[in-house]
Amino acid sequence: MQKHNFSAGPCVLPQEVLQKASQAILDFDNGLSLIEISHRSKPFVDVMEQARALALELLGLEGKGYKALFLQGGASTQFLMVAQNLLEKRAAYLNTGTWADKAIKEAKIFDDILEVASSKDANYNYIPKGFEIPEDHDYFHCTSNNTIFGTQIKKFPNSPIPMVCDMSSDIFSRTLDFSKFDLIYAGAQKNMGPAGTTLVVVKEDILGKVSRKIPSMLDYKVHIDKSSMFNTPPVFAVYTSMLTLQWLKDLGGIAAIEKENEKKSRLMYSEIDLNPLFKGFAAKEDRSDMNATFTLVNEDLKETFDTMWKDAGINGLNGHRSVGGYRASMYNALSLDSVKVLVEVMSELESKA
Amino acid sequence: MQKHNFSAGPCVLPQEVLQKASQAILDFDNGLSLIEISHRSKPFVDVMEQARALALELLGLEGKGYKALFLQGGASTQFLMVAQNLLEKRAAYLNTGTWADKAIKEAKIFDDILEVASSKDANYNYIPKGFEIPEDHDYFHCTSNNTIFGTQIKKFPNSPIPMVCDMSSDIFSRTLDFSKFDLIYAGAQKNMGPAGTTLVVVKEDILGKVSRKIPSMLDYKVHIDKSSMFNTPPVFAVYTSMLTLQWLKDLGGIAAIEKENEKKSRLMYSEIDLNPLFKGFAAKEDRSDMNATFTLVNEDLKETFDTMWKDAGINGLNGHRSVGGYRASMYNALSLDSVKVLVEVMSELESKA
Repeated sequence: MQKHNFSAGPCVLPQEVLQKASQAILDFDNGLSLIEISHRSKPFVDVMEQARALALELLGLEGKGYKALFLQGGASTQFLMVAQNLLEKRAAYLNTGTWADKAIKEAKIFDDILEVASSKDANYNYIPKGFEIPEDHDYFHCTSNNTIFGTQIKKFPNSPIPMVCDMSSDIFSRTLDFSKFDLIYAGAQKNMGPAGTTLVVVKEDILGKVSRKIPSMLDYKVHIDKSSMFNTPPVFAVYTSMLTLQWLKDLGGIAAIEKENEKKSRLMYSEIDLNPLFKGFAAKEDRSDMNATFTLVNEDLKETFDTMWKDAGINGLNGHRSVGGYRASMYNALSLDSVKVLVEVMSELESKA
Repeated sequence: MQKHNFSAGPCVLPQEVLQKASQAILDFDNGLSLIEISHRSKPFVDVMEQARALALELLGLEGKGYKALFLQGGASTQFLMVAQNLLEKRAAYLNTGTWADKAIKEAKIFDDILEVASSKDANYNYIPKGFEIPEDHDYFHCTSNNTIFGTQIKKFPNSPIPMVCDMSSDIFSRTLDFSKFDLIYAGAQKNMGPAGTTLVVVKEDILGKVSRKIPSMLDYKVHIDKSSMFNTPPVFAVYTSMLTLQWLKDLGGIAAIEKENEKKSRLMYSEIDLNPLFKGFAAKEDRSDMNATFTLVNEDLKETFDTMWKDAGINGLNGHRSVGGYRASMYNALSLDSVKVLVEVMSELESKA
């Protein structure tokens, strides 16, 4: 039976990527497994260089002073690395959800943080707008997509100071002028690959301006100097990310996948809006194309609905405990057909009820 | 042609582990890939718990106040986490090689370090002995096996202060009283699994004694409280490590593999000592059972020898640039047969020369 994986992350990956990754575990280089060759061997150094180049190419950031790194520790480690590398006096943060809030908490260990705006009072169901970014701060930090709440920044501010963005859950999903950002980071496990590596794309000229001593593993400059191979990289996660980026490039890049993603989210949200049994959680203008959050109007239907979608081969639809209800995560590798199956189940529930 | 992988790490892993890991990429849970299911799903939570339990069981540390964690960032991240979590005033380090030296460098960012002894003056070809560990220091740090130089601590001191050990390159290879150590860490990519996760085994009662604020991702207590799932773990690396630990347990545990490792290293070193064409690098009493370092007495034979071992299917024999010559890494998953093939090539060279 075909599976429809709506998991919020780790999440669905392209079938051809899974096939190649599986094969590489058995035989990658001349009979040796990907995970038993030296990371300093040419075959793996080539993988790392290709992954870094593909990331910059897909984002349109080649030759613009940016470097791409594949690090470890997830976005949670970036919360502290950003502050450690860039925070000298004070930084400005936009609080749009659980992860933004955690980024603020970690940065506060280093210094003072200004929250320019927050939607915490409304359980983060919208994106604050019209806030000011003060010119005398070190950087402005925001979260492009809020996986838990299903909101997404549609229009980014023109920041007078370096703009840092956690794009963990929507990177490579939509066209943006990525050169507006000075540092972008993203855990791999949504649109890029398996858990275990984190992409950091950083404009080199914002670095080297803080006075504190930075431990080597937390210093972007160290990783740049060592071409993202300061120590043994997470070989499998980098390779599988490279395969996924190559898959995206072959499809036509971000512009091509964006069209698919728009089709999927339009279909999903139109069902949420038209079907009287369901109610969307996020403010309409801020709805995420990646994660649609919704609840049943009548909780009595829960058991029936849960049985129906599970029977249809759907997986990972339960909402996060902070919101409840359901969350349909529609990352790059999820097909329009999978969304059609879900929408069909939802309208079938309506005809039954 | 059969491969004989003497790589220093990432390195050879058991064939059955590679088979299972490869299969899990295609289908791990009911048709879904290991790397596309939620890390909070029961099948993966079970993997993490099993990996943690196996690590403690194999080390004989169950029920003795220790916790096992599977973190990210390699041993290099442990260099700073150890200091950040344990260093209040001053710590004592034993300098036995490149990695020990790096551990000292990272700890110095936090506070003052006493080097109790060093073999740097002799290019780390021996393990210093007879040094004193001062009682008024926060902890004593040592490196059990020096991958680059091929030395290994055979007898650990009785430390009057908490003993921290980087066991990256010999963990699970020999029986030791592991309860002598208060914190053990090891990058997975030698005896445990693929690159991308790091085992930390820590006695809980040594934590919580420093006054500095510790960022969440660098705080052992945070990871313990969250059962090693504070954020998305490196799913594939943890699963493959769990498989390798299970393989070791099925073989009979550390005591069983130790016997095999002794056979391999005895055969290897006897060839190095008896064959007049080769010379061992490390002091005899400190020779590592994991990494045998040796050079050709007559460099003119290099081309011939290199062709011969490559033709025999041997891989990864080149020494580290700090030592030169050759390094035969004989981790748990390398068979005695592979060592026999290498030794045969070495004696063939002798009969030719």
